Amino acid sequence: MTTSSSREAFEARLRAIGAERYHDKHPFHHLLHSGGCTPTQVRAWVINRYYYQSRIPMKDAAFLSRCEDPNLRRAWRSRIEDHDGHVDEGGGIRRWLKLAEAVGLNPDYVQSAKGVLPATKFAVDAYVRFVRDMPLLDAMAASLTELFAPAIHSRRIEGLLKHYEFADDTSLSYFRNRLKEAPKDVAFGLNWVLDRATTAETQDAAAAALIFKTDVLWAQLDALHSAYVEPGRIPPGAWQEGEGRLETGVAA
Amino acid sequence: MTTSSSREAFEARLRAIGAERYHDKHPFHHLLHSGGCTPTQVRAWVINRYYYQSRIPMKDAAFLSRCEDPNLRRAWRSRIEDHDGHVDEGGGIRRWLKLAEAVGLNPDYVQSAKGVLPATKFAVDAYVRFVRDMPLLDAMAASLTELFAPAIHSRRIEGLLKHYEFADDTSLSYFRNRLKEAPKDVAFGLNWVLDRATTAETQDAAAAALIFKTDVLWAQLDALHSAYVEPGRIPPGAWQEGEGRLETGVAA
Repeated sequence: MTTSSSREAFEARLRAIGAERYHDKHPFHHLLHSGGCTPTQVRAWVINRYYYQSRIPMKDAAFLSRCEDPNLRRAWRSRIEDHDGHVDEGGGIRRWLKLAEAVGLNPDYVQSAKGVLPATKFAVDAYVRFVRDMPLLDAMAASLTELFAPAIHSRRIEGLLKHYEFADDTSLSYFRNRLKEAPKDVAFGLNWVLDRATTAETQDAAAAALIFKTDVLWAQLDALHSAYVEPGRIPPGAWQEGEGRLETGVAA
Repeated sequence: MTTSSSREAFEARLRAIGAERYHDKHPFHHLLHSGGCTPTQVRAWVINRYYYQSRIPMKDAAFLSRCEDPNLRRAWRSRIEDHDGHVDEGGGIRRWLKLAEAVGLNPDYVQSAKGVLPATKFAVDAYVRFVRDMPLLDAMAASLTELFAPAIHSRRIEGLLKHYEFADDTSLSYFRNRLKEAPKDVAFGLNWVLDRATTAETQDAAAAALIFKTDVLWAQLDALHSAYVEPGRIPPGAWQEGEGRLETGVAA
């Protein structure tokens, strides 16, 4: 039988998972942030990543639906508010659609989830199901990729502003807002996990959940790279340049 | 094959379900609202009904977790806010705990869900699962008991104020707030259901869902009546007078 790690050692173990596996290391992100993406590749990224964004509130609601503690629900609910916004304005999803418009995509097309790569859907849907079905500790631990997000968002804002004409305060407002929101969320989530994962078994489960989540993120970029960069083989039914453009409306 | 009803006829069918089966017709409510309950019976009601209140935000989050439409999520989210309140204040759950204190119960005991009748838990948990698993239309239709709630809340406020010393603006604030919240929610839900239940099959399913929900409410009062009124046979482990009192703290 293995023994549990100290709180500090376990936190270091979780952070090492990010250092090794977070999707900031994926070649697609290097391409994107260094200005190497074509407009088509940027659009493909915006369309596919929207699917992930659009499921995050459903994932957070699934978590909420399993919380018996009203205080945990009250703390968690702000994540849904941050993404969905209010009835008439605000929220990360609307901000992402501003980015979609800025790169020449019709937001209705992007919202329709037509053209999203099947591999993206499989990965994202697996994450929603994971949070719905697995122990709460694992579900919370899976959210801890937010530990690694501020660095990638900062690099992304810098890289996009430097290299792409579409980048401005409006189109990048999603990332700027996440810079404020994610640290608050992750401080809460990290403490929650560290407080509860105090046995070898629960620490292993929490680490496995975080690895699972890095896989969810990585698999999306692999699918994107394969379809739109190299070898550039777009699977049947997935988005092709010219579909869903701002000027042409929702493609059939 | 049966044919579908008109919008008006189908709404009348839903309303007839309430007229026939809503728990305002249950003898326990007649007893409560007419001043016939002993303090012990009022406490038993407050403890058991709290369990229902405490699961409503989980039920609403389960619904939210299945909504792919951000606009539907944005509209639905206020239900969770209404019940849970904010991180530091507000919300129906906190207001219900004020009622618990007013009738001499320790809110920590009530929140612990110790002593709740097993039949109450079975019924309430069945409702949460129903919303998690069934078609969205059925889940929405199940919420339409809110059509019938304002009348019972008004009668309850009047009856409790007239007959019980514990009743005042603070202890009854839960019901006063629901008078404001429920009509807004139910107008949205009713229209949503009427817009979508346009075939005989979907109308039957929505009606069955609403009947299911009236069963969930009725079963809770049957269990309460059986345990604390007549025959007054309290099942093993359920709350007994003297446990969880304000002055004695959380009973072991």
